[in-house]
Amino acid sequence: MAKARSAKEQNTGKPVPRAAHPVSPLAPVKYPTLPPLAGVRLATGEAGVRYKGRTDVLLVTLAPGTQAAGVFTKSKTSSAPVEWCRANLKSGGARALVVNSGNANAFTGKAGLEGAEAVARSASATLGCKAGEVMLASTGVIGEPLPAERITKILGKLADEGSASAWRAAAEAIMTTDTYPKLATAQAMIDGKRVTINGIAKGSGMIAPDMATMLAFVFTDADLPANVLQDLLSAGVKPSFNAITVDSDTSTSDTLILFATGKGASHPGIAKASDKRLVEFKRKLDEVLLDLALQVVKDGEGAQKLIRIDVAGAENDAAAHRIGMSIANSPLVKTAIAGADANWGRIVMAVGKSGERADRDKLKIAFGNQIVAEKGARAAKYDEAAATKAVSGREVHIAVDLGIGKGVARVWTCDLTHGYIDINGSYRS
Amino acid sequence: MAKARSAKEQNTGKPVPRAAHPVSPLAPVKYPTLPPLAGVRLATGEAGVRYKGRTDVLLVTLAPGTQAAGVFTKSKTSSAPVEWCRANLKSGGARALVVNSGNANAFTGKAGLEGAEAVARSASATLGCKAGEVMLASTGVIGEPLPAERITKILGKLADEGSASAWRAAAEAIMTTDTYPKLATAQAMIDGKRVTINGIAKGSGMIAPDMATMLAFVFTDADLPANVLQDLLSAGVKPSFNAITVDSDTSTSDTLILFATGKGASHPGIAKASDKRLVEFKRKLDEVLLDLALQVVKDGEGAQKLIRIDVAGAENDAAAHRIGMSIANSPLVKTAIAGADANWGRIVMAVGKSGERADRDKLKIAFGNQIVAEKGARAAKYDEAAATKAVSGREVHIAVDLGIGKGVARVWTCDLTHGYIDINGSYRS
Repeated sequence: MAKARSAKEQNTGKPVPRAAHPVSPLAPVKYPTLPPLAGVRLATGEAGVRYKGRTDVLLVTLAPGTQAAGVFTKSKTSSAPVEWCRANLKSGGARALVVNSGNANAFTGKAGLEGAEAVARSASATLGCKAGEVMLASTGVIGEPLPAERITKILGKLADEGSASAWRAAAEAIMTTDTYPKLATAQAMIDGKRVTINGIAKGSGMIAPDMATMLAFVFTDADLPANVLQDLLSAGVKPSFNAITVDSDTSTSDTLILFATGKGASHPGIAKASDKRLVEFKRKLDEVLLDLALQVVKDGEGAQKLIRIDVAGAENDAAAHRIGMSIANSPLVKTAIAGADANWGRIVMAVGKSGERADRDKLKIAFGNQIVAEKGARAAKYDEAAATKAVSGREVHIAVDLGIGKGVARVWTCDLTHGYIDINGSYRS
Repeated sequence: MAKARSAKEQNTGKPVPRAAHPVSPLAPVKYPTLPPLAGVRLATGEAGVRYKGRTDVLLVTLAPGTQAAGVFTKSKTSSAPVEWCRANLKSGGARALVVNSGNANAFTGKAGLEGAEAVARSASATLGCKAGEVMLASTGVIGEPLPAERITKILGKLADEGSASAWRAAAEAIMTTDTYPKLATAQAMIDGKRVTINGIAKGSGMIAPDMATMLAFVFTDADLPANVLQDLLSAGVKPSFNAITVDSDTSTSDTLILFATGKGASHPGIAKASDKRLVEFKRKLDEVLLDLALQVVKDGEGAQKLIRIDVAGAENDAAAHRIGMSIANSPLVKTAIAGADANWGRIVMAVGKSGERADRDKLKIAFGNQIVAEKGARAAKYDEAAATKAVSGREVHIAVDLGIGKGVARVWTCDLTHGYIDINGSYRS
């Protein structure tokens, strides 16, 4: 499945981190090749934070003048790197990003914040920027002290090795229980000038919709100020990362940062996200965000099927979203789909438990193009064989129409299988 | 594990319904023997609603003057029997209860209500009472039309066969994916007179705390009016059935009804639940409710371990309850416990995602008597072997202290294992 990587991509000369579990059947057949991005240099290395024989640190060096914006977990027990980024992104400027896998540096107390600061200071000394211009992210086990010195020890070497095209290696270095690296790219015109958007992400479990529920980093060579990036990102995260769930569990470390180097084709300054010249850029950015979010769901721990849920006719959009998430997070719905059981009664149950307004006698449910329930009962033309077929493929579509309003929402999840139990009954060991 | 039942208990002469799945390792070593209850007669039969070769209908005949009160699912798609009971319990009187397993009569539209009414009318004609005095409950697959005539056909025979002591057979007839029947009994003094409380329940999956999350029927020979029963039940359900969860999925059919025949030892009339003469009765009733609720969790689909979660120091009791449920419903916490992994970082995560106020630097977590985390980091005396041992038994105790207030809560759940996937990937077939 994985195609051979160029020597340039394989900038550390080390083997690709192998997933501890079989690659998801929903993994992309071919990974996209991300073009070099002006103002961005990537380097990965083996620090041995937790894993052996694989890369676990990513250093991204950003050109002077790079602007950045982020969205983070809403968890009340967010990690030290999340707190660091929240505090330091306020200035809008960024010169580097350091990510490690294997240790989340979450619930590590004062030592955790000191560890984060040590990494930032080390990177800033190496690169000649302010510590506050170094963004940080950590992913892995919660609660264990971060061995910061293992990371800082290799930052100098990584700063020398940086390449503009090592995207694949970058996506691999940040994997934890992921079974494949997650990459997306798009191009857009801003006022007649072509700009590029490259994104990488990691995430497989502890995925629930409450801000960007994993790590994702999106880079563009467009020239956009931090306030515009923030508005674009806050809007773009809603129908993408905030519309996915694997297991209803929200991470302490969820981080999505958008960096703009301004080092691509020169285009006029843009001060507002609502500027009409940004329409295409916004659409392409949204596509990259959704692409990465769906790659996370498709790599949901143990996932064998991607499930799309469309809710219509709800009281309002927020109600539709909550109903969609009630379905997407229902273990009984997810196990039924895993077993190719067209058990639409469980969809009724999940609608009912959402707490949102529903009228049993107006509710309509379909699997694919098979209407299975309407007007408060099983559909007159219900066809068990056709319904079963509709939930038997790799991609399953559930449509629910409440019939009481105009609220709509679309969310994604994956099925719940033995693989999830296998992976999570022994994650730490 | 199951002890031999007397001919009296085995009133239908039919074999015990065999569970489709192995009996839970948390099942009681010995089932309690429930004494006969004055004013209650029980009979079970095979209607073939869905299952073959096992009992699936329970008829309980209640003495004239019996008072009743209930709590029901909060689902917006509640079943026809739930709607029937809600409407008819208002009068406070009850003369019979008909329960079937195999079909929930939920999301069955107008035909569902007609089916429910047909069963109630048939029982009322047989017993010589009003249809509105017949309480109903159905449990099983959602969305399939109820074959009411299969039930009504055997009601006459069941009315003739009733026994005051067929509690075990009654508990078996209402089982679906349950692996063992659930029974509890207690005695209490009211103003010097001894009264009895007998209860049966069913429930294994689709268990979440939002009213009585399964079917449970509790009977007493005490002489108490419906308003007193309602107050006792509404209070008693909070720390019992509303404090358990198996899979966060709330049933369309959840029903808990308390019946008082008034046919036991004569005691003075009592008009208020707060009457001091009811203190012991209330305590014993609460014990029966908790006993039944815990039996439901212990039979949670695939359950291998019972998990008790005590939350203290939260902003208030409601916040503590929500934090407890956030932990209890976390698939990552439940799979970690299944794998005997003392992964307390996932407890931190679940506290963080609850949305309730928490201060990382004051949070304290213990498994059994092993403090694993405190003051925002791993406990100084953390002992991995001891922590692992604390999560390795059949019963696991998690204690969380937020350290910011006086709110407390106690909730129960079970672990999440391969058994849950096995059972729910093929429930209908």
